[in-house]
Amino acid sequence: MTSLSKFDKKLFEKTMKTRFFFGPSFHIYGGGMSGFYDFGPLGCALKTNLLALWRSHFILEENMMEVDCPMLTPAPVLKASGHVDKFSDFMVQDGLTKEYFRADHLLANKISSLLNNKKNSEAQKMALEKSLALVDAWSNDPVLLEEKLKEYEVKSPETGNDLSPPIPFNLMFPTFIGPTGLAKGYLRPETAQGIFVNFKRLLEYNQNKLPFACAQIGTSFRNEISPRQGLLRLREFQMAEVEHFLHPKDKSHPRFAQVSHVELHLLPREAQELAKEAEIRTIGEAVRSGMINSETLGYYIARTYLFLLRAGIKPDKVRFRQHLATEMAHYACDCWDAELLLASGWIECVGCADRSAYDLQRHSEFSDQQLMATERLDQPLRREVMFVLPNKALLGPLLGKRMTAVQKCLDELTVESKMAMQRQLVEQGTFVLSVAGEELELRPEMVSFKTEEQNVYDEHFTPHVIEPSFGISRLVYAILEQNFYLRDGDEPRAVLSFPPVIAPVAVTIFPLLNNKGFVVFIEKLSKEFRQAEVLFKVDDSNVNIGRRYVRADETGCAFGCTIDFDTLKDDTVTLRERDSMGQARLPISDVAAVVKALVQQKCTWEQLIKKYGLFVFAGDSR
Amino acid sequence: MTSLSKFDKKLFEKTMKTRFFFGPSFHIYGGGMSGFYDFGPLGCALKTNLLALWRSHFILEENMMEVDCPMLTPAPVLKASGHVDKFSDFMVQDGLTKEYFRADHLLANKISSLLNNKKNSEAQKMALEKSLALVDAWSNDPVLLEEKLKEYEVKSPETGNDLSPPIPFNLMFPTFIGPTGLAKGYLRPETAQGIFVNFKRLLEYNQNKLPFACAQIGTSFRNEISPRQGLLRLREFQMAEVEHFLHPKDKSHPRFAQVSHVELHLLPREAQELAKEAEIRTIGEAVRSGMINSETLGYYIARTYLFLLRAGIKPDKVRFRQHLATEMAHYACDCWDAELLLASGWIECVGCADRSAYDLQRHSEFSDQQLMATERLDQPLRREVMFVLPNKALLGPLLGKRMTAVQKCLDELTVESKMAMQRQLVEQGTFVLSVAGEELELRPEMVSFKTEEQNVYDEHFTPHVIEPSFGISRLVYAILEQNFYLRDGDEPRAVLSFPPVIAPVAVTIFPLLNNKGFVVFIEKLSKEFRQAEVLFKVDDSNVNIGRRYVRADETGCAFGCTIDFDTLKDDTVTLRERDSMGQARLPISDVAAVVKALVQQKCTWEQLIKKYGLFVFAGDSR
Repeated sequence: MTSLSKFDKKLFEKTMKTRFFFGPSFHIYGGGMSGFYDFGPLGCALKTNLLALWRSHFILEENMMEVDCPMLTPAPVLKASGHVDKFSDFMVQDGLTKEYFRADHLLANKISSLLNNKKNSEAQKMALEKSLALVDAWSNDPVLLEEKLKEYEVKSPETGNDLSPPIPFNLMFPTFIGPTGLAKGYLRPETAQGIFVNFKRLLEYNQNKLPFACAQIGTSFRNEISPRQGLLRLREFQMAEVEHFLHPKDKSHPRFAQVSHVELHLLPREAQELAKEAEIRTIGEAVRSGMINSETLGYYIARTYLFLLRAGIKPDKVRFRQHLATEMAHYACDCWDAELLLASGWIECVGCADRSAYDLQRHSEFSDQQLMATERLDQPLRREVMFVLPNKALLGPLLGKRMTAVQKCLDELTVESKMAMQRQLVEQGTFVLSVAGEELELRPEMVSFKTEEQNVYDEHFTPHVIEPSFGISRLVYAILEQNFYLRDGDEPRAVLSFPPVIAPVAVTIFPLLNNKGFVVFIEKLSKEFRQAEVLFKVDDSNVNIGRRYVRADETGCAFGCTIDFDTLKDDTVTLRERDSMGQARLPISDVAAVVKALVQQKCTWEQLIKKYGLFVFAGDSR
Repeated sequence: MTSLSKFDKKLFEKTMKTRFFFGPSFHIYGGGMSGFYDFGPLGCALKTNLLALWRSHFILEENMMEVDCPMLTPAPVLKASGHVDKFSDFMVQDGLTKEYFRADHLLANKISSLLNNKKNSEAQKMALEKSLALVDAWSNDPVLLEEKLKEYEVKSPETGNDLSPPIPFNLMFPTFIGPTGLAKGYLRPETAQGIFVNFKRLLEYNQNKLPFACAQIGTSFRNEISPRQGLLRLREFQMAEVEHFLHPKDKSHPRFAQVSHVELHLLPREAQELAKEAEIRTIGEAVRSGMINSETLGYYIARTYLFLLRAGIKPDKVRFRQHLATEMAHYACDCWDAELLLASGWIECVGCADRSAYDLQRHSEFSDQQLMATERLDQPLRREVMFVLPNKALLGPLLGKRMTAVQKCLDELTVESKMAMQRQLVEQGTFVLSVAGEELELRPEMVSFKTEEQNVYDEHFTPHVIEPSFGISRLVYAILEQNFYLRDGDEPRAVLSFPPVIAPVAVTIFPLLNNKGFVVFIEKLSKEFRQAEVLFKVDDSNVNIGRRYVRADETGCAFGCTIDFDTLKDDTVTLRERDSMGQARLPISDVAAVVKALVQQKCTWEQLIKKYGLFVFAGDSR
């Protein structure tokens, strides 16, 4: 790659806008609505290709299941997941203008501006840097947050007015389902819950065997308080998540050996507390030393890293940062974020977490369904088992055919639920059982309870979950930024150096001139690219070839295939590579297969040059 | 295909459930929430493949643009589109239980039940059939609807209670954006509006040339009153829409000749009014005779038909029905629905409409932005042109650098807006102009108006829009139903005969037995299928091969590739086709390329048999 210059934000933004990679949504209405962006034709194609690569790298390669669940989610599901009560950011309000701001963002901005003071002593600077790294960790605790806002004397950013104490604001968009307005729902804040509520069906689909992994690609929503970072903080964004279910006592991974040599930048908890930089380690070492808490978590971190590289992320601009103890979700055992270096700093794009048994246990509790897996024991165990025995003489006539469903429902209750039922029947004389959506009121005489010691051959347990969770919209932005560079020339020319596999257009066909004799070759190539499933375009506009190359480079098109007068003579064309601007001359019948191989990363440009030789011709107006 | 038996709804539903093609969402919470369904691994893969085929058939083949816009949409956008005021269904309420029902559904059910009365005279039957066909047309008019509900004495379905008169219920899900609760938004009811509000950017992207087409694949939402039809009536569903922008005076299509011979079942308006059946016509005839109002609309109808066939819809189970004048949206010039024949009758899955200039004109009016295209005239015209001239001496000092933006904004106002501004300044002495999200209050002395005759070289016009709109979730369901059949045997066995290109699994690798010698072949084939981008699975479970074939047929897997003891000797395997159950024996090195060709429809099973011969072996336990 040539002349990788300093990132020019202004030119980058201009390119994004004029080539319509993305832009603010609903912009004809007063400039749009903050937190919402549209992907134009190039951005949309890039995203589509990225998702296809993700599907191939994770779902197909690892033989995962994939599901597709609704975004609109009834309140009870998100009550169980903890989002109704805990999925909040803290905001502060300007005392006079009544404008709202995110408390942690104002705090981070204030600390950053203090850091810019050149009079800071080395010790002051260190302390401020450490504080800045801890803002995320403070942001979940309103008391700590208020204390720090006072300590750093944070005021309203434009007016300098005093601010209110932090107020929690739930980030989910609420709505109502159905005509009565009684069924409250929310737009999901993550795709994961759809997989958890399907756990039983998926386990069965996998013939009741663990481990297995299930993925979901979809849109999630967060009602951000004041989103002002383009694609990095959207109110509606795409995610791709994997939930890998496994035995809590066996978190090994059969393919770990295949990735254990992978080297990456790791920033563990302790290093952050000492304000150290990330260190290069192999994933094998990190797991062996206990820095990363299991093989499976390590496996996904390595696979995530390899995916990011295939998608065009630069190896020196990605690090994996471990969550601090204070920052980690209450349920997680361990969590590592893939952070990507952008103009605005290190930005989290992927989270790899061990969510333990938290989600399945919560849904089990709130839905009263047993979300467990079963392991056949080598040696039977003696265990106390509790039974709820329906009084058939009483219930039979009352329930008729529904008796079987009630019996099944009673059998499947968790031990805790059975005990709660017994207690409630004694204390309150009644218990309401939900059976297939209907309610059945039980009285003490209708059921009896029995506890006995039995030989137990199966062990039931709640699986743990390892989750890599990708913010796709953010990742698209990171790819755009990290692959943007300026090529020297009369004036700097923008190039987007996407890997061919995700380029919105893999190859453009350029007839040298608007010549009728070229049409048959354009059609031949078009047909062959279409058959090979290569994304292509024809640029036969009335502009000189050099300017058309520049235009294609600006859209990130990986290769150019030029038809010229020699083509008429010997059925050959030139193939041009975007970043080296090198060209090779090859038979037209080879082109589709060669480009396909380049896109699929089965062949490199260097190998191609070795085979066909570098082609140079006079008057090249690149 | 063998033994296509009568559709067995019960077994179909059992297969969908046990193989987890799809199922009610959030089912562990009291059985779920009506109107929401999850796609399981097989259903999800089927949908992914269907969307890839759609993208290839429409976007890539026709060189369309594609965009991706948010679902959450600010109220002003949907006010402009007409959805805030008009996107309602009418519901009726049970006078006693207070339960709500969709008025038109109760009416249709009542008429259907009257039709079942065997004592009807032929004339009564005809009249009822005609009424049934008109229910859709009546359903938008509350007065007519109330009249018909009375005429047919419709009561509450379970209780027989009296019903309220029809009450309109807006089908959009409302929410609020941001922390103040001031910005109202809705979940979009269609993806089209995202394309319309981007019209100017897309036109520019297309170098200001018409016609062009832009597609969007995405989710839409409708808060159905009482959805009870599984995947056919969802509250959250996927769509794929194309908006083709063209000159109102030129609706020809350059590729029309390529489809004019396509024959399909057409049911025009007049035939419906006479209760006739659909007739087979070529699309060329239908456009020539004026039955379909333009070549471009006809082109999309034909392309839609060809797509449906590729996706496994049966040619005798699809018809195109023209909307009745009363049923058509107020803006449409012509509209044809692709209806698919299912167990529950003819179901609309695709709408092909000429939306005229309605959408662009409405957004132009509501956003005060000119959404027009420009045509260079051969001969200049003399026209009155209106200018708004800012008083620079007054405004210059006030606006500073913002002057340019204001000038641009004034120039871009429509003639109607300029006239309205002039009127308001005279009558009210003030006018508020929105410039890039800010408001500028103008007073009469700040601007002057000038009208003069000019030579006009460009004509500005609002393009018309032709829209094929696919209900993807419905289509997935239709494909499942139309491709389900039972094969005779000891007991009937379910088969899903998906075309290989959309099958969730294209090929399954079956080692005949659990033999260590087979592992190397499994790995070889897996690697080759992965490289060829063929969706495959390995079924090495400890079950006899016949039962494994049955299981694969039930998931719609197109081909089976069996490794047996001859493989160890001569490197050949058998390839089995799902519907004929025929087998061929071929070299293992040919398999991936052969299956790829079969999936891509470049080769048929019959051609393969011609090349390799039909393979029969003793004791075949298929």
